[in-house]
Parts: sequence; structure tokens; C-alpha cells
Amino acid sequence: MSQVYDRVALIGLGLIASSMFWAIKRAGLAGEVTGFARSAETRETAREIGLCDRVCDSAAEAVEGADLVVLCVPVGAMGAVAAEIAPVLKPGATVSDVGSVKKDVIDAVAPHLPDGVHFVPAHPLAGTEHSGPRSGFAELFENRFTLIVPVEGTDREAVERLEQFWQGMGAKTEEMDAEHHDLVLAVTSHAPHLIAYTMVGVADDLRRVTDSEVIRYSAAGFRDFTRIAASDPTMWRDVFLHNKEATLEILGRFTEELFALQRAIRTGDGDHLFDYFTRTRAIRRGIIEAGQDTDAPDFGRVKRG
Amino acid sequence: MSQVYDRVALIGLGLIASSMFWAIKRAGLAGEVTGFARSAETRETAREIGLCDRVCDSAAEAVEGADLVVLCVPVGAMGAVAAEIAPVLKPGATVSDVGSVKKDVIDAVAPHLPDGVHFVPAHPLAGTEHSGPRSGFAELFENRFTLIVPVEGTDREAVERLEQFWQGMGAKTEEMDAEHHDLVLAVTSHAPHLIAYTMVGVADDLRRVTDSEVIRYSAAGFRDFTRIAASDPTMWRDVFLHNKEATLEILGRFTEELFALQRAIRTGDGDHLFDYFTRTRAIRRGIIEAGQDTDAPDFGRVKRG
Repeated sequence: MSQVYDRVALIGLGLIASSMFWAIKRAGLAGEVTGFARSAETRETAREIGLCDRVCDSAAEAVEGADLVVLCVPVGAMGAVAAEIAPVLKPGATVSDVGSVKKDVIDAVAPHLPDGVHFVPAHPLAGTEHSGPRSGFAELFENRFTLIVPVEGTDREAVERLEQFWQGMGAKTEEMDAEHHDLVLAVTSHAPHLIAYTMVGVADDLRRVTDSEVIRYSAAGFRDFTRIAASDPTMWRDVFLHNKEATLEILGRFTEELFALQRAIRTGDGDHLFDYFTRTRAIRRGIIEAGQDTDAPDFGRVKRG
Repeated sequence: MSQVYDRVALIGLGLIASSMFWAIKRAGLAGEVTGFARSAETRETAREIGLCDRVCDSAAEAVEGADLVVLCVPVGAMGAVAAEIAPVLKPGATVSDVGSVKKDVIDAVAPHLPDGVHFVPAHPLAGTEHSGPRSGFAELFENRFTLIVPVEGTDREAVERLEQFWQGMGAKTEEMDAEHHDLVLAVTSHAPHLIAYTMVGVADDLRRVTDSEVIRYSAAGFRDFTRIAASDPTMWRDVFLHNKEATLEILGRFTEELFALQRAIRTGDGDHLFDYFTRTRAIRRGIIEAGQDTDAPDFGRVKRG
């Protein structure tokens, strides 16, 4: 893979940015990668582990001369960062982001950007339960989708270059409009996360079942919830506050259906339950066929290190 | 490992029974293992793949002369099977089961069993999204808990022998009373399963997001829900109908907490969300420390065959 940008600046150095750095280096996608994080401790760690070719002490310094600037900060911080870097952006540069919400991010970032700078929002659908500069690894985006959400009138060349860049990191890219993105993500990610957080919270509150019992017996289904309920709290707070409408809509439908199933349990309507469970099974099969998971009999988990 | 029972009978030949057979054989825990399944097709498959030393055409035939009889049928079918085999049970034999619910199963099975037969209910906390006689494998119970739920006045020797048998199949055993078992499982397994089924159902119902989109972008969190929503519909229908009280109690608490989080989203209460998400993260850490999962960065999933 050859170089796609001369200089790339990563603003925010958490799981996504650190994985991007290692993936960029592996594929030789950029001449130089600069980085900035608000926290001095994170910058210190980044220097220590060789994360970024150059770690800068201000966002402006990192951004200077960059052909691509990627905002990798929590969704709620995007607007302020955009305002800060706007005056030093190189004419013709592309600004992108990796936020899990698109409509609000576009509204917050776009107004700050000067003419002649291309804004191409993006969202890599990849993550782990870990966060921070040490959590990244080059393979994070492999065989995962990165959704590209161009705003109206964006330069096609800038869009395609960014797609090429993500493909170089191993991702499959798809274009989607912001509103649809936010609804799709409310279904596939935001509502499931809130639900998982809630179930884990209920288990913790229940006085008659100890935390230690919940933990010991978690393999019975609960484990899959704790996995997604361990993600970064700041990131998720911002996601819910900034994709409020779509998330609340999906949660409304969810509680409606959950009440119907609870009623079926209460009244002993076994047919309703059976039919429902049979229908949901098919979706799982589709996910395996689409290559987004494995059907290995131990759920694909093996012990490591 | 030496032989624990001369003859073991497995009634019902799905995921659990077939895994038990391979685990018994691997460790040499029984002299002969007989098996019976209600469906002629399942018996045919069992004979074809060598599942059980002898596949019988009636439950009575399989049970005759057995020192241990394990009921591996859906929870709702346990009572009828117990009534059917009761007249032919060998004096001094142990009857056990693998049901996910214990109070209702004890109420359904115990009245049928003659004096001189030991009833020791059990529940292996292990499973996959697959079902049927071909889905079993010897390693299913390894490092997983099997909960032993002795009824009052049970012979200690019979209990300890059954524990030794499960340990021989690789499981860790714990004793628990039936009522507490049903509550613990409602939290760690039954409520999470119903919630996962519901979320997958909502995604399927939503007309503005296609199934294909849900499937393609499932890696963003939804995948973990589909995994548990793919389990056997008959088994789960019976679980909910027979652990009604505890499941409805936990679901009640769940919706209460979910409503509080929805309100925090609606009113923009970021602190409430952040604090909640920080608390749930700790439970996840506990599960990894307890050895019930791995924290490998790709969620411990690797591609297989």
C-alpha cells in the first residue's frame, strides 16, 4: 500500500487514534503522523510507547501543515476542538472524525471550518472494552466497516481519498447520510449498549444476589452484557446525549416489545414466546453468513495470554 | 479418572446430553451409557454418529438397570418423563436433570419418584447457540460451574457421587438451594436472554433500517445480543414459563432502571449517565479476574475453520 497523505494529525489519543496510528504505519499510509491529547499524562504515555511520529503540546501545532486531520475525541468535545484548530488548517486539507454520532457532530464542527477545507465525517465500527493510548492495535479495523458520511457538496476526490485511507487500514467502507447513520447506529449499537449497562446495573443493585455470584455464574448469558457495558463512560455519555432522538425512539419500541413478552410470560402464552424466539434466531444466522462473527461452539472465545 | 457409575441413562439427546456423552467417554466415567430421544429422527442421528453406547426406543428401556438417570429434556417436559420412567427405576439409583429452572422441576419430578431412589437436581451453566444431537462436544463443561441443588433429606453419598461425576466432565460444582438458584439464574441468564431476544426483535421490526443493515453493522454491539438470542426456542419458552416469578421480578427492576436512564438522556443529565457507566465497568473487571472470560482486545474471538 502506498502513501495516501503526506501528513496526518490525530487529535485525541485513545483506543481509535492509537489503533489508527499502528495501522497507518503498518501500511505506510502517511509520511508523518502527528498527535495531540489534552491530558499531559496521555501525551507522556504516547511519547513513551512511540505512539505518533511527533507528539505535540497543542492541537494547533499538531494540525499545522497536515493534509488530513482526524478528530478522535468524545463526541461532545468535537465542536470546541474544531474551533481551536480552524485558524491553522492548511488550505485544501481534509478534516474528518471518528465519532459514533454524525448529525450533531456535523452541526458542531462544520460551522468552524474555513472555505477550502474538506469536511468528511467518518465512523469506524470497531472497538473493544479497553480505552486509552495503550489500548490500540493495528488489526482493530480489519474486516470491519467504516461508515463515511459526506456532507452535501463535499469534494468527491477528498471523499474517495479518505475511503482509500480507511481501506488501507483494513476497513470496508460504505457511504451513508448522517440521519440514517444515527438511526442505524441507535439500533445496532447505542440502544444495545444502554440496555447492557442497565442490566449490569440491576445485577449490582440486587441485594439478595451478591456481586460475587453474578460474576461466578456470568457465563450463563450475562457475560455478553458486561462485555459491552465495560466501554468508555465518557464516550458513551456523549453518544447518548448527542444521539438523543434516535436512541429514545428505539428504546421506546424496545420497552413496548419487552412489555408484550413480559405479559406473555405472566399469562403463560408459550406460543407467543416460541414464535418470537424462532424469528430472532434467523437474524443470528444472517450475521454469521455475513462474516461479522463466527459460530465456533464456545462462542469463538479461546483463552489467550 | 475412574468409573463413577456402572450405567448412565441420558433422556433427551440435545446439546447438553450429547456433550455429556462425549465428556463421560473421554474420562471413562461410566461403564455403559444408554440414550433415548422422543424424536425418531434424533435417535437415528444418534446411532449414525455413535452418540451413546446404546440408543433405545423407549425411555423405560434406556433407564432399566441404570445407576444414574439424567433428564436432559426441556423444563416443561420433565414431569411427564419422570412419570414414565418411575416404574422401572432401579432401587438405589440416582435421578438428576440439567434444567435451567429448579423449583418447578423439583415440584414436577419429585412426586413421581419411588422411595429408595435419590433425586439430585443439577444445572450445568454451559451452552452454545447450537442445539440437537450433533452439537455436543466433550469440552463444553470445562471450567464452567454445575450447580447441584439437593432437595431436603437427600442422601449425601448420592450428592457427592454426582458432584464427582460432573467434576470428571471438567465442571466446577457448587451446591445451592432451589429458590436461590432460580433468582441467581434470573439475573445472570433468564432476564439477559429475554432482553436480547427483545432487542433483536425490535431491530427486525424496524422498517426504516433493513435487516441487511442490522446484520452488516452488528459488530458495533448488537452482535453480542444476537449470540444469546439464537438459543433453542423450546428450551427458552419453558424456562420463562417455569421461572416466571423471579424473571418478572428482575425484568420489573430492569425497566425501572432503564426508564431512569432514558430520563437522564432526555433531560441531558450527563453526570447521571457517566456515574452509572463507571460503576458497571467494575463488574466486567471482576468477571475477567474470576476467570470466566478473557480480556483479549478482539473480545477473545478468533476466526476458526
